[in-house]
Order: sequence, then structure tokens, then C-alpha cells
Amino acid sequence: MSIAQKRIQAVKQHLTPEQEHAKAVDPVASMNEERAKAAFDIRALTILMDGGEKATLLKEKIMQELERDPLFKMDDIHDISKSELRERTMEKFSSMLHHLQNESVETFKKRMEIVSLVDPGFWTRFGVHYGLFVGALQSNATPGQLGYWFGKGALSLSSFVGCFAMTELGHGSNVPGLETTATFDEASDQFIIHTPTLTATKWWIGGAAHSATHAAVFAQLIVKGKMHGTKCFVVPLRDPKTYNTLPGINIGDIGKKMGRDGIDNGWIQFTSVSIPRAYMLQKHTKVSRTGQVQEPKMQQLTYGALLQGRVTMVADGSNVSKKALSIAIRYAAVRRQFSSSKTDIETKLLDYPIHQRRLMPLLAQTFAMSFTATEMTDMYNLMMTRLEGAKEGDADIDEVMEILKETHSTSAGLKAFCTWNCLSTIEACRQACGGHGYSAYTGLSSMYADFAVQCTWEGDNTILTLQLGRYLISSYRDALGGKKLSPGVGYLNKLDVLIGKKCQVKRMEDILSPELIIEGWQVVCANVVRNAGIEFDACLKQGMDVDDAYEHCSQSRLYAAKLHSFSYLFNRFADGVSKVTGSLYDVLIKVCLLYGLYSIEENAGAFLQYEYFSPAQIEFIRSSVNILCKDVREQAIPLVDSFNLSDYMINSPLGRKDGNVYVHYFDQVKRSNPQTQHPYFDRLIKPLITRDVGGEEDEEDEEAGLEDEDDEDED
Amino acid sequence: MSIAQKRIQAVKQHLTPEQEHAKAVDPVASMNEERAKAAFDIRALTILMDGGEKATLLKEKIMQELERDPLFKMDDIHDISKSELRERTMEKFSSMLHHLQNESVETFKKRMEIVSLVDPGFWTRFGVHYGLFVGALQSNATPGQLGYWFGKGALSLSSFVGCFAMTELGHGSNVPGLETTATFDEASDQFIIHTPTLTATKWWIGGAAHSATHAAVFAQLIVKGKMHGTKCFVVPLRDPKTYNTLPGINIGDIGKKMGRDGIDNGWIQFTSVSIPRAYMLQKHTKVSRTGQVQEPKMQQLTYGALLQGRVTMVADGSNVSKKALSIAIRYAAVRRQFSSSKTDIETKLLDYPIHQRRLMPLLAQTFAMSFTATEMTDMYNLMMTRLEGAKEGDADIDEVMEILKETHSTSAGLKAFCTWNCLSTIEACRQACGGHGYSAYTGLSSMYADFAVQCTWEGDNTILTLQLGRYLISSYRDALGGKKLSPGVGYLNKLDVLIGKKCQVKRMEDILSPELIIEGWQVVCANVVRNAGIEFDACLKQGMDVDDAYEHCSQSRLYAAKLHSFSYLFNRFADGVSKVTGSLYDVLIKVCLLYGLYSIEENAGAFLQYEYFSPAQIEFIRSSVNILCKDVREQAIPLVDSFNLSDYMINSPLGRKDGNVYVHYFDQVKRSNPQTQHPYFDRLIKPLITRDVGGEEDEEDEEAGLEDEDDEDED
Repeated sequence: MSIAQKRIQAVKQHLTPEQEHAKAVDPVASMNEERAKAAFDIRALTILMDGGEKATLLKEKIMQELERDPLFKMDDIHDISKSELRERTMEKFSSMLHHLQNESVETFKKRMEIVSLVDPGFWTRFGVHYGLFVGALQSNATPGQLGYWFGKGALSLSSFVGCFAMTELGHGSNVPGLETTATFDEASDQFIIHTPTLTATKWWIGGAAHSATHAAVFAQLIVKGKMHGTKCFVVPLRDPKTYNTLPGINIGDIGKKMGRDGIDNGWIQFTSVSIPRAYMLQKHTKVSRTGQVQEPKMQQLTYGALLQGRVTMVADGSNVSKKALSIAIRYAAVRRQFSSSKTDIETKLLDYPIHQRRLMPLLAQTFAMSFTATEMTDMYNLMMTRLEGAKEGDADIDEVMEILKETHSTSAGLKAFCTWNCLSTIEACRQACGGHGYSAYTGLSSMYADFAVQCTWEGDNTILTLQLGRYLISSYRDALGGKKLSPGVGYLNKLDVLIGKKCQVKRMEDILSPELIIEGWQVVCANVVRNAGIEFDACLKQGMDVDDAYEHCSQSRLYAAKLHSFSYLFNRFADGVSKVTGSLYDVLIKVCLLYGLYSIEENAGAFLQYEYFSPAQIEFIRSSVNILCKDVREQAIPLVDSFNLSDYMINSPLGRKDGNVYVHYFDQVKRSNPQTQHPYFDRLIKPLITRDVGGEEDEEDEEAGLEDEDDEDED
Repeated sequence: MSIAQKRIQAVKQHLTPEQEHAKAVDPVASMNEERAKAAFDIRALTILMDGGEKATLLKEKIMQELERDPLFKMDDIHDISKSELRERTMEKFSSMLHHLQNESVETFKKRMEIVSLVDPGFWTRFGVHYGLFVGALQSNATPGQLGYWFGKGALSLSSFVGCFAMTELGHGSNVPGLETTATFDEASDQFIIHTPTLTATKWWIGGAAHSATHAAVFAQLIVKGKMHGTKCFVVPLRDPKTYNTLPGINIGDIGKKMGRDGIDNGWIQFTSVSIPRAYMLQKHTKVSRTGQVQEPKMQQLTYGALLQGRVTMVADGSNVSKKALSIAIRYAAVRRQFSSSKTDIETKLLDYPIHQRRLMPLLAQTFAMSFTATEMTDMYNLMMTRLEGAKEGDADIDEVMEILKETHSTSAGLKAFCTWNCLSTIEACRQACGGHGYSAYTGLSSMYADFAVQCTWEGDNTILTLQLGRYLISSYRDALGGKKLSPGVGYLNKLDVLIGKKCQVKRMEDILSPELIIEGWQVVCANVVRNAGIEFDACLKQGMDVDDAYEHCSQSRLYAAKLHSFSYLFNRFADGVSKVTGSLYDVLIKVCLLYGLYSIEENAGAFLQYEYFSPAQIEFIRSSVNILCKDVREQAIPLVDSFNLSDYMINSPLGRKDGNVYVHYFDQVKRSNPQTQHPYFDRLIKPLITRDVGGEEDEEDEEAGLEDEDDEDED
């Protein structure tokens, strides 16, 4: 439509010229305008973050397949009931099985990563079998047992769906404290699996309510009256022909959750259920026919596989943040609100300094998480390669154990840090969309509800952060003992240089350098870890045992771990940026500096406390963050485009790539809420508003009051 | 059951003595133990916070009435569908109407406050008519018009339910930018209400989808082609006899939201709808028969009523925090996890220093919000008394305007600060409940979803915080000009004393004093407000206009407002505590100091930046927070009990007063999820697990692998 035509139409619609002017800039034009600003090759950035063009193409292929698969229809997801969602989630199994059996492990892993972004509930439900149950077999079964259960159909889902029964009503993180018992009955050569108390009820068991035929049950091994700790047992739950529960098994539905309602979490109680002795997974601990218990020697070597979940969650935190920011930033690029005194065209949200402050640091953080996730995955894969076949007595066993320890602590800390970051990013994005963020259809509320559990499962975030803190203290003590530490905590080998070091720059602008920021973080982290270490030592000197001492200084541990994680992310980001050149470097270095300075500003107390930066330097950093927010804002849409998430994946009218947010949003709301007969007018409203309310009202002559008597200009 | 009996039963259940020991401390006993620690009169604290015994008794009466009213049944709320919830919400109208018509305004306000804690969706839906629609009449109608609409049934809901049609798809906070038009047609003496564009669609209108017969519509007044700004018009929407929409009115359902699904939010489009001229509410602007527009002189005087919502939300933030903390702290008092090396009895969560750190500062903050809410309500009531009948030319008009300005800014800042605090408190409480926090039945997830909108409606929190920031800058400039400021910002009259002032204490312990903390906050706030003011002045000197200058320094404004709010809350809390004595004082002063020091720790960067505290003092504050957390933890259950929320109000098995959390939780889960036939076994699971998967599996002789061949002890 030409401007003249628009004007004519505007006049017809009782629009004043002012309003017509305000209309002149429509959302699609606004979005195009932003996209035209790209100062770098968006595709190149996508490929960089994906780890190569092949990975990008694979990702695009999978996104397209999902979008075209009617089972993966997602735009009606907010209005279907829990039972519909449960059923639809189960329905997706068959299509995923096809891929599982016909593509490489690497491709399937990528597929699952993308599926988790589209339908986290399905991803979990499917993962309960393939990740948790099959993972438990792989970690705990002897080769013979593995063959047996695979032969029974555990891999192909033939008469077999597994679930993972670890947590109990009264016990979550404390696995050694689980109450379920597995008592060896020598006479019958069986274990008796039993739920002795209410709190021993297996709880939150994904797949238990409607899917599983078998469970990997974690229970206290009791042989000849002696407890041998928590072991894993395969327990049949249901007859696969009828899905009736087997004798002694009681299962119920856990019901409604905050999110991920597609998963059929259940509770299980066992009442003296007998299973063959060989159903105990005996790769590590073995129980013989005569009740001899053989304990494993280096069980730590088996922990590696348990870290997979955490590593995946670092990547998921980065991916979900990308999805949330795609919505909030695209919306901010087209949403206009208030106009300055100089123009009638309202200002884009993205042009408000405060809106830049709300979103740009989170965008920078998301890039930092993305680079970190890649590195974390590499670290994990490297570790698994080293662990493969490693056994006690190997020449390099100490080194392998060291790598395991580092990966364990790093993944613990990053899982916590990145899932917390992601959860707050989703909420910040939701709030940044104003009222529309409260609509289910704009996608951020369910994203929050679905994601929130990531802060709790596979290790409560606070507990995981404390684990990293413990590792930092022990690394500090190792360093004092002269040990050369691994790179992630290498700065603790330089305590004498770092403690007391101040920022030395000739000009304030010299602060804007990754090297200097890295140094600053090292100084601060060295100080807080050292403080925690000193506090810990003091506790030991007061006579506390190691555990009590760690408990006593848990706040210092938490603080140290948190700062270490900020620093760690910045290092990964700076590393990543140092490897690129040209216009890609030009844009990424700004994003990287923004993350660095923002993270310093967020922790200004620590930088001032240890006097690395002076108050004036902190002031400079604060204003630099403002400037960098503005700089990054200029490339915000191209940067978000580089996340390369299709409209289907984002599944939010506010995050539409074309910027046509209002049209898509209105369509979605109308489509999802077709007009119907009034559902309860006759039953509820009519009796209410037509009831007898006394005689004072409804007098027609009261209309007299409507017109104001002193209608002044007519006097 | 005696201990001997327990032991016998334990042995029968295959329990080892260790497990039996761990069972010895049951949740109810744990709770009783905590309650027995009370070192103060719980009832006295309840009465203090309620503002007198009469208020406490009233609150208890209302809680009991609600609990006994079958319409207010709440324990099945998590499993009913949106349409059931909508219908049930409407059903509650009649019982509330009864109270509305039969009790004093004060009593009814208290009732609504309590209802909002039980069923925030209903509270909103009912409030749309009585708060927003009737409020719009009261603020904007002439006495005659008010009488007319009341005569039509607007007060008694007789053939009349109102809604409040302000926000549009494309406009939320920017009311002057609304696009809906109300064009005066002199020939017919009518206004033509029209939705000119998609973005002008009225959006989020509570009550529009299913309830309202009339709307208070905010639209651009156009008379003789000239725009006169946004005014309020009463527009009939539906025939009250049939609930069919009237000609030219199109209404749709906004559908699923993050929370509060009991409200029937709708969208409305007007297509040249004619209404009588007198349906424009003409208390302020008047339009005569001949199209003469008479603008109001001092419209600001009418803004007072608009602040009611914000003031209510400060109280709601405090109340909802109390509810969330009742759940998390009671659960932490009975939940045990991990045992130290010295005992087999697992440790209560509440005894972990890190868990104290997670919850005790939030408990302290909630007390601060509670005292602040009381003061904010008093300030508002005082203002309304002064505003009543105030008009241009009154001798005290300047003073009245000053009070209005202060209440406006204070309520803006506190609404934002307290609703943000409350939202994070809910989430922190949810995470502190571990996995169970993710269950719908434990109540925290829906509390979060319901509360989240408070950060957006009645003014987006960021924008409101900026408003406070603007007030702080203008107060700073007034102070420089020699004006004596109102108490809330009185510290800005002492800039010469405060700027550069350092904490002067002989001994570190002297920091533990409300007076010193107040001084510290004044110094910090004086500095940040002054910095923002200097930045603002510099912008003006560079030639920016006032609005641009404010925009430019929005980050400094936000920062100043945030710190001012911390300080404000601490002042209110310290004020409140200074008025009590004895054992109540002894416990409250610790809670108060905890809030003070925690708030300093959270903003350590600012205290170090302006050098009020030295790094060593900040270290002392950090460790004092640890100690105070431990102190407050000792009284945590009595403190939570003083919130005096019944089990019905809390509606969470984890928050049960008796501590019997597992029994209640398991009961709730079972009751809410009765066992049924498998819903989709035949359709989905059977075909999946019995499909042909190729010939390799299901060979019975594969059982051979199950037994490990090198079953060593038998060799």
C-alpha cells in the first residue's frame, strides 16, 4: 500500500494525521531495518557456534523434519490437557525409535538436543528409558547381564520399557540414604525388594505411571543381615501383555507438575517383591550364590557416565537461553512504546537504554554459555575416551583420576551456574515482553515452567555449587603443597603473584581488554578461594572433622564457586573469540567485553574488596557497560539470527523472524480460542444479575443524572 | 507406638538398626521440637503485624469462613481445567456479593486481601468490576453520572457487570498512546467508538470474554477533528438478557495464561459503535452538546485513586512471601538429608548453614516488607484524606500536591521492589523444597505463576522503578535549591554531612546497630542519587531536553531507586522494631539486623565504592550474616507461626503446621490422581512394544548371560 493510500485509509478509520504517522513504521519494516544492519556474516557465526557447517546442516535437516512431522505439532500445546499431552508424548516414541535405529549415535544425540528444545517433556520421557535406564544398565551391568537385558528387548523397546527408580519420597540427593531394601534370601537365591516406610516410596519416577515394564531400582543391599550400601537392581513392574502391575508392586501417578506434564512420573511401592539374584547389576559389587559380597575396588571410574546428564544440561541452558532471547529481542525490535517530544513515531523498546540493559548482558552471557557448553562437551568426551578401559594399576591411572575429578567438579559447577543463568534469562525475557509475556501463547511462561526443574534434578544446584567449592578448596590446598593444577584452576598456582595485585592501566580504556579482565577475575577468584581455604583450615585447627569443616564454610565455598564460574565462562568466551578474525571478531569482541564488564559490575563488591579495581575504575566499568549495551544492541537482531532457530522451534508469535508479531499473535489467540456458546451464562450469570436487589434501582427517570447540570458552555 | 514396638516392626520390615535409628525422629516430632523453642509470644507478634487484636480476630474469622465455604474449596485446584476454573471462579461472585452488601468497607477490604491469598484469580476477576470498573466511575464520572450508572445496577451487579478496557494489543504502559478513537458526532450527539487498527484491539481485558455487560473504555477523544487525549467512556458490550454482543462489538477470549486462569481475559474490537455523548465520563474533561471541550485544570488531584492498586500490591507481596516461606521453612524443619559422620540421624535442612542462608534473609526481608506495607497503607490513607475535596486555590494545595507526589513515587518504587522481592522469594522457596517444589500440589509453582503478573500490571516494574529514580533526582535538585524534603527522602537535605562520610566504630560489633546501618544506607543513597543527579545535569548542559536527559541516565536512576528501596525498607523495619520491647524486641532486632546486613552484603559494591565500609568491615558483615542466619533459624518456626496462616490458606502439604508433610503429601497425590484403566495402552503402547523388531531377540537361551561367568567366590 502506498503512503497516500495508507493516509486515505487512515482518514477513513477516524485516524488523525498524528496517529497515521505513528503507524507509518510497521513491525515488519522495523525488523527488516534491524536485519539490514548486520555488520558480519551471520551464517559464519552460526557455523562457528555449531562447530562446523556439517553440524549446521544436520541441525537444519532435523529442525525441518520435526516441523513437518504431525506428531511434533507444537502450536496447540498450551491448550491441551495433561492427559492429552501425556498420550501425545507417548505417541512420539515410535517416530524417534525409527531414527534411533537408523542413524549414528552422534546424529541421534544432535536430534535429541534439538527435540529437547521443542518438547522438553517428550525429551525427558524418552530419555528416561534411553538415557537413564539403559545408562544404568551400561554403567552397572556385567557384559553378560547387558546382553541378557538387551536380548529381552531393553534396547529395542520390545515388550520392554524401562524406568529409573532412584529417588524416594524422603530422599533425593542423598543416594546412600535411600531406604528401599534389597535383602538377599539365600534359600531361594533371590533378592527381596521392599519399601519399608512411606518415605521409602519411590517418587518422581519418570515413566512409572504409564510406560514402564521394568525399573532400575536403587536399594540398600542387605546380605546376611549386613548392609552393603545402595546398589542397582532390575525389577519387573508390569506384565507387558496387559500392563497390569505384578504382585507386590503398587504404582500411582504423581500427577500435575510445574511443567513437563508429558512425562508420566509415578510413585512405586514394593511389598516383598522377589527377583532372581542375577537381576542385581553386578559389574561392580557382586553377590554370590552363597551370599559372599565382593566390593569393587575403584568404583569412581564408573562415575563418568553419570556426568553425561550435567554436560547435556550446560548445553541445554545455552540453547534455551537462545530461544528465550530470540523472542524477547525480536519483540523489542518491533514493539514501540512512548515517543520522545521530538517525534510522533514511538520508540522501539530496543532503543531504550534501560531495555538494552535488561537484555544485552543476557545476550552476551548466552554467547559465553554457548562457547562454554562446547568446551564442556569436548572435556567430557576426552574424559570418556581416557576412562574407557582404564583400570586400577594402569600407569596413567592417577592422571585419569585427576581428569575425572576435574570434569566432575567443573560439570557440577557449570550445570548449576548455567541452569540458574538460563532460568533467570527466561524470566527476564518474559518480563521484558510486558503483559504479553504472561500469555501462554508467547511461550516464555511454559519455557520457564519446563526449564525450572533443571535447577534441581541431576543434583540440586546449591549442592552442586558446593561441590565445586569443595574442589576449589582442595585445589588450593594442593597448590600450596606444590602440585601443578589443571588449567581450569591453574590460577591457584600463582597465588603469590595474584594476591594483592591491582589493576595497572595507563588509561581507563585499557580496561577494555579480555586479558585484563581475565587477570582481574583471577585476582578475585584467587582471593575468595584462598579465604575459603583459610576458613576451612581454621575449622580443622579448631578440631572439626573434614565434613564439618566444609559444612561450616559452605557460604564461602558457594561464593568462591560462583565467582569462579563467572570467570570460567569469561575465559571460555575469550578463548573462542581469540580464534576468529575480521568482522566476526569485531562484533564478538564487543559481546565478549560486555559479558566481562557486566560480570565485574555484578560482582563489584568483590573487585573492590580485594582492591583489584579502584572505585573510579568501577565507575568507568559501569558506564562502559552502558556503552557496550548500546553497541551490541546495534547488532542484536543479526546476533539473534545467528542462533538459527526456526519459527517452528521458537514457537512464539513474538519471536517471529519476520517481525509480524501482532498479526501472528492475534491469529494464534483466535485459533486457540474459537468462539463458542457462553459456557455458563444460564447457570451462573443470569441468576446473579437478574436477582432481586431491592427497590431503589432500575428507575428509568434516573437517566436525569446522566447529563451534567452545569453543562457550562450552554449556560 | 512404643519404641520397642517400633523396633519390632522395623525388624519385620527388613530394617537394620541404623535405619530404625534414622526413623526415630519423625517429622511431627521435629516440628514440635522447633515450636518448643519459641522465645517470644507468637500471638503478640501476630497482633503487632496485623495492627491490633481486633484485626487478627477479623482475619481469623474470615479465614474460617472461607475454609468452610464449599465454593472456596482449593485443594483440587491444580487438577481442574481452565474452563472448570473459569466457571468456578464466576460461581464465587454471589457469596462475595453477600459480604460486600452486608459489611463495612474496611472489613470487606480485609476480606479481599485474604481472598487474594487464597484465590488470586478470583480476587482479580471480582476486582475488575469493583476495583477497576467502579473505580473508573468514581474517578471519572460526575456525581450525576455516578448516580446514573449505580442506578443502572453498576454497584449491585443488577443486569450489569463492568470491565476496564484500557490496554491494547499494541499499547500497555503508554496510555496517552492508545489508538482506540472516540469521535464526537455532533449531528447525532453521540460518540463513535472505533478500533482503527489491529494493534488498537483492546487486549487483556479481564472479564471481557465471559462476564461483562459494559466496559470503561479508554479512547482518544476527537472533537471537530481535533484530538484531546485519552478519556474514559462507558460502552455497553452485551445484552444482559442474552449475553449476545451488541452490534459493532467483537469480543474474543485471550485464552491460556501463565497463571490466574480463573479470569476471563478477552480482546474487544469496536467497529463504529455509537454511544450517547453522556456516556463519556465528564468529571474532568467535558464535551458540550455543541462540541465545546472544556479541559480540567488540576487533573493530578484525581491520580490518587489510581495508586490504590499499587499500595495493595505492596501488602500482597508481603503476604504471599509469608505464604511461600511458611511452606519452605516448615518443610526445612522436618526434611532431613545426609547425616554427619557422628550420627545416623540425618540432619534437618534447616540446620545446614547454606539452607539458613537460602531462607533466613528472605524471612527477614518479608518482615521488612510487612512493616513497610503497613506504613505504605497509612501513607496512602492519609493522602486520600488530604485529597478529599482538595481543589485548586486551596491554601494548602502545594502541600497536598507534595504529598501526592511523594506517595506516587514511593508507591511506584515499593510496588516494583516488593513484587520483585516476592517473586524471587517464591522461586527460592520452591527450589529450597528440592524436587517436591516441582510438584503442583506443593503449591509453590502455581504461586509463582499467579504472582508473576504483579511485576507487570499496574505499571511495569522497571518503568515504576525509573519513576522513583526520577523523583529522587528531582528531590536532589530541590534539596540543592534549599527545599526541605519529605521524610522519605530527607537524607538528601544532608548531602554535605553524608557525602564522604565513613563508618566510624570503635569495635567491629558496633556495626550491629540499626542506627549505624541507617546511616550507612543514607551515605550510599546520597551518593548514588547525587551521581544520578550530576549525570542528569550534565545531559541538560549538553543540550538534551529533560526527557532525553532522564532517558540517558536511566541506568543510574534505576540503580539509585533500587538502593533507596533497600534503605527505605530497612528504615520501616527498624522503626517498627523500635516500638516493641521485651522478648519480642529480642527476636525482632535480630531479624532486623539480619535484613540490614544482608542488604548491605547484597550491595557491597556500593558500600565499598563510596568507602562507607572498609573491606575488613564488609568481611565482618559477611560473617555476621552467617551468625544472624543461625540465630534467626533458632526462632524460624515460631516466626513463621506468627504469620498466622491456616493450613487451608497455605494449601500445601509441605507447609502443614503439624509437620506431617509426607503423609499429607502422599494423601494429596493419591486423592488427586485416582487409579484408572491405562488410558492408551491398547492404542499406543501395545503396538509399540509388540512390533516386529527383527529376529535377534527374545531367544530364551540368552538367559545364559545373566549369571556372570566368573562368579568368583564359587571358583
